[in-house]
Amino acid sequence: MITRMSSLFLRTLREDPADAEVPSHRLLVRAGYVRRVAPGGYSWLPLGLRVLRNVEKVVREEMNAIGAQEIQFPALLPREPYEVTGRWTEYGDGLFRLKDRKGADYLLGPTHEELFALTVKGEYSSYKDYPVVLYQIQTKYRDEARPRAGILRGREFVMKDSYSFDLDDEGLKRSYELHRQAYTSLFDRLGVEYVIVAATSGAMGGSASEEFLAVADTGEDTYVRSTESDYAANVEAVTTPAPPAQPVEDKPAAQVHLTPKTPTIEKLVTFLNEAGLGRTFTAADTLKNVIVKTRQPGSKEWTLLAVGLPGDREVDMKRLEASLEPAEVELLDEDDFKANPFLIKGYIGPKSLQDNGIRYVVDPRIVTGTAWVTGADERDHHVVDLVAGRDFTPDGTIEAAEVREGDESPDGHGTLVAARGIEIGHIFQLGRKYADAFELDALGPDSKPIRITMGSYGVGVSRLVGVLAEQNHDDIGLIWPREISPYDLHLVIAGKDDTLSAGAEKLAAELDAAGLSVLLDDRKASPGVKFKDAELVGVPTIVVVGRGLANGLVEVKDRRTGEREEVAVDGVVEHLVKLTRG
Amino acid sequence: MITRMSSLFLRTLREDPADAEVPSHRLLVRAGYVRRVAPGGYSWLPLGLRVLRNVEKVVREEMNAIGAQEIQFPALLPREPYEVTGRWTEYGDGLFRLKDRKGADYLLGPTHEELFALTVKGEYSSYKDYPVVLYQIQTKYRDEARPRAGILRGREFVMKDSYSFDLDDEGLKRSYELHRQAYTSLFDRLGVEYVIVAATSGAMGGSASEEFLAVADTGEDTYVRSTESDYAANVEAVTTPAPPAQPVEDKPAAQVHLTPKTPTIEKLVTFLNEAGLGRTFTAADTLKNVIVKTRQPGSKEWTLLAVGLPGDREVDMKRLEASLEPAEVELLDEDDFKANPFLIKGYIGPKSLQDNGIRYVVDPRIVTGTAWVTGADERDHHVVDLVAGRDFTPDGTIEAAEVREGDESPDGHGTLVAARGIEIGHIFQLGRKYADAFELDALGPDSKPIRITMGSYGVGVSRLVGVLAEQNHDDIGLIWPREISPYDLHLVIAGKDDTLSAGAEKLAAELDAAGLSVLLDDRKASPGVKFKDAELVGVPTIVVVGRGLANGLVEVKDRRTGEREEVAVDGVVEHLVKLTRG
Repeated sequence: MITRMSSLFLRTLREDPADAEVPSHRLLVRAGYVRRVAPGGYSWLPLGLRVLRNVEKVVREEMNAIGAQEIQFPALLPREPYEVTGRWTEYGDGLFRLKDRKGADYLLGPTHEELFALTVKGEYSSYKDYPVVLYQIQTKYRDEARPRAGILRGREFVMKDSYSFDLDDEGLKRSYELHRQAYTSLFDRLGVEYVIVAATSGAMGGSASEEFLAVADTGEDTYVRSTESDYAANVEAVTTPAPPAQPVEDKPAAQVHLTPKTPTIEKLVTFLNEAGLGRTFTAADTLKNVIVKTRQPGSKEWTLLAVGLPGDREVDMKRLEASLEPAEVELLDEDDFKANPFLIKGYIGPKSLQDNGIRYVVDPRIVTGTAWVTGADERDHHVVDLVAGRDFTPDGTIEAAEVREGDESPDGHGTLVAARGIEIGHIFQLGRKYADAFELDALGPDSKPIRITMGSYGVGVSRLVGVLAEQNHDDIGLIWPREISPYDLHLVIAGKDDTLSAGAEKLAAELDAAGLSVLLDDRKASPGVKFKDAELVGVPTIVVVGRGLANGLVEVKDRRTGEREEVAVDGVVEHLVKLTRG
Repeated sequence: MITRMSSLFLRTLREDPADAEVPSHRLLVRAGYVRRVAPGGYSWLPLGLRVLRNVEKVVREEMNAIGAQEIQFPALLPREPYEVTGRWTEYGDGLFRLKDRKGADYLLGPTHEELFALTVKGEYSSYKDYPVVLYQIQTKYRDEARPRAGILRGREFVMKDSYSFDLDDEGLKRSYELHRQAYTSLFDRLGVEYVIVAATSGAMGGSASEEFLAVADTGEDTYVRSTESDYAANVEAVTTPAPPAQPVEDKPAAQVHLTPKTPTIEKLVTFLNEAGLGRTFTAADTLKNVIVKTRQPGSKEWTLLAVGLPGDREVDMKRLEASLEPAEVELLDEDDFKANPFLIKGYIGPKSLQDNGIRYVVDPRIVTGTAWVTGADERDHHVVDLVAGRDFTPDGTIEAAEVREGDESPDGHGTLVAARGIEIGHIFQLGRKYADAFELDALGPDSKPIRITMGSYGVGVSRLVGVLAEQNHDDIGLIWPREISPYDLHLVIAGKDDTLSAGAEKLAAELDAAGLSVLLDDRKASPGVKFKDAELVGVPTIVVVGRGLANGLVEVKDRRTGEREEVAVDGVVEHLVKLTRG
């Protein structure tokens, strides 16, 4: 096909959009691929829609290749199934909710586990029907608190979501592995630079889960990887290696010390080191107790929770939230302290927490036999050599402490370094949460019901367009990978001579006949303007019909490398077919 | 491609769904094309999605053929642009409205005039940029009062909506005509039986407008056509031919008569004919005055409106509503009569209406010089020979009277007959309503602004799937037109012999290699079950690999005609390619 720029609904912009924070956003707007309609809502102009459709096509092919079957659900969904699984409430503000003219509750689907489970239950009954993998490529909705970076984090976006249904855990593992392979193949094919990281499963429920993150400095997700192994994980999913427990018998007894004006770790450590206790203390020797309040979805009651962690680490709220999900978490305010006078700010210790029935969970480093300096529950007092497992017993452990570069890798090999990425895929072993909710059973060979186990798998299709732009651009514009470029070739008529036009039109027709898609710049603009637009738009191969045509030559330019070559018109179609279909 | 029914996510149903009123709904559910998820919300199972995509493809091709450019907007839209045009309010209960987490108002787009106008304004500035036609194939939302007939009238559905932008009325007419041709070509290609009818423009605003109605006894839309010309119109759009005005001078003077107990037309006519007035009266000689109340969008105030029409006709509320749109219309209740004691039920006449400032509009048949029997505004009294233009002067005319078969055709040729249909396309000349609202101007050659004029054009894409099923089925199942059939061929293995399977698999592979899509029934079911399912599913050509294979023969069956022929395996691929592509 040939698209003529003289009539294409495309106006490139010279200026960066004011709200663009990242290169992909800036360039996709400037090059006329997308336009903002509302916060987190974008329209796809002709070039953008072509790229989006190309990405969809690749996703569809890879899904079909693993035997997944495409179906499509409405985006406007009734409340009831989400009420059954609790997600109507758990999703909180992230869900767009609305009422119809009769006052019935609806939501705009963020993911469709409920509907897929119900549909499979509606169609299938025998163990012989399974396994099955279903997917859709569909517009989804999430009321993000901070939509940002153009199409990278929108409130309306296109997702491929698939769901596997298996008779047993081994089947689920196979379906999961199939998706892992399909995603690997997909992202490899698109030329995305990415890592696979261990992930928490969030509001989805379930057990094993990995994320595919596109490597990008501008990414919202921080992940860590090992310096010496292929371990990689979302920060929320990092598990802290617990040191071995130690004997408690040989530890000195706990002693309460007057430690005036030491409500902070820093002041406490300085005081202790000047107090002549015969040893040196660091922040890592102190046990900091942070009090938060949590609230279960749908509840109005807040409950206090104490988190104990080594004093050299801060609480990472995102890690804490991930550990407590789906509960909400907030720090205490002054009223909370007033209501709980046993909480002596800066001097909180395990004793009064446990005396007052506050659940007390600790960082995994706080194992039996470790000795700590911590609050003595009295202003200006701390206790030294308080030994875990002897002087206090926590109610459990929690992953809430910040992860730092240099921390030991959880797999025991190397240390962690941090990097940033953009989530492009997510695979989950959901297990039986949704099957339990809807009693999704297959009748077994012995006529007994078999509870189905599910997996859920997502690819951010519209986000991938942004990710590909983020990973494929330079200062002057976009540089699309061939597989998803809006056109195979950008053909520029560089001059106003009628013979140039005629030559270019003839060439375009031949390229079209050879099955290539051509963006033909037949505008009256100057060659300079046209070249600039071609570089901005980012079709990977630019063909210039200019003065050389008189000598039977056209120029073929590689957008990525900037290399140019003169090619004889006679053989250029064959040359370009080979180059683009290669 | 080959799809194996042994693993296809398809379970056909023996029973009709309880809520199915029309054949397409019944068969699309039974054959496993769609499933109901919510009132007016359906999921597309694999077969249904393939048909939907095929229809989309044909629509896209026809739109591209007239130079329309595809873009895509969000479905979740901010309130503001719809507030500017008044449609936020005018749409009434038909619009799905919601709030985001910050309390900002949004809607789910029913049509996108506002957004397209704003987008063109954002990109284009010069008269040289025009004309342009943009379209999208997109999921749309309308909160229908009565979603029905499966996908024929859903609340979430797929529409192709396009918008033309022109510099002048002639350009708009050209764009309109291009769409008319594209739609004609589209529906012809899909093999839809349809009529093009004159239409009112409803909440869209604008002037010229036609609807494409698929002919269907089960259709919701009633239209009329002439017995002697190609005139056809939506009932709402029928204009009543006005008879010529008559002189008033030679008419007898109006006389008030005591007409006891004649509050109905029937009783009045009987009384008059028994009263010895020297002539015969019919209901058509009486002038019936119907009082309604109307309310403008966004207003809380109801206003009375009186509609005068010949006593032999009822008010058609749909026609009245179309005439008054976007205002709401309701009949009066007892309280209204109490509040307006000058309205003497059964005896209302023009005089007290006009004395009391009630707007009085009449049927176009009530022209100057016509004489009527009507209420005398006093119980048990009527006035005879009240002459329009002499004794009363209406405030205007209105199309509100029922249209009847046998009425004169508005084009003067023949009379009207009624038929039913389903709206599948709609073309509008919107004019400058939206351009005015958003000040959409092009800078002219003389540097003066030119106000743009718009057209808006829709095709019900998902509805077309229902319409095609409605027009292409028999008692035992669906019969798809080739162009949009989910598969080219339905290949049935009729027997459990391994050589049959091997032969069918080989044939399927060859057909696939020849570019045909094959639905291969490789299930363990009996031939009887398979044939029944094949007839229900409705692929137009069914190929049976059965006992004949031993003699080198397969059976090719035409689903529509039921004709079967034995074809030699050797030449069957070529035969089928010709048959399906021919």
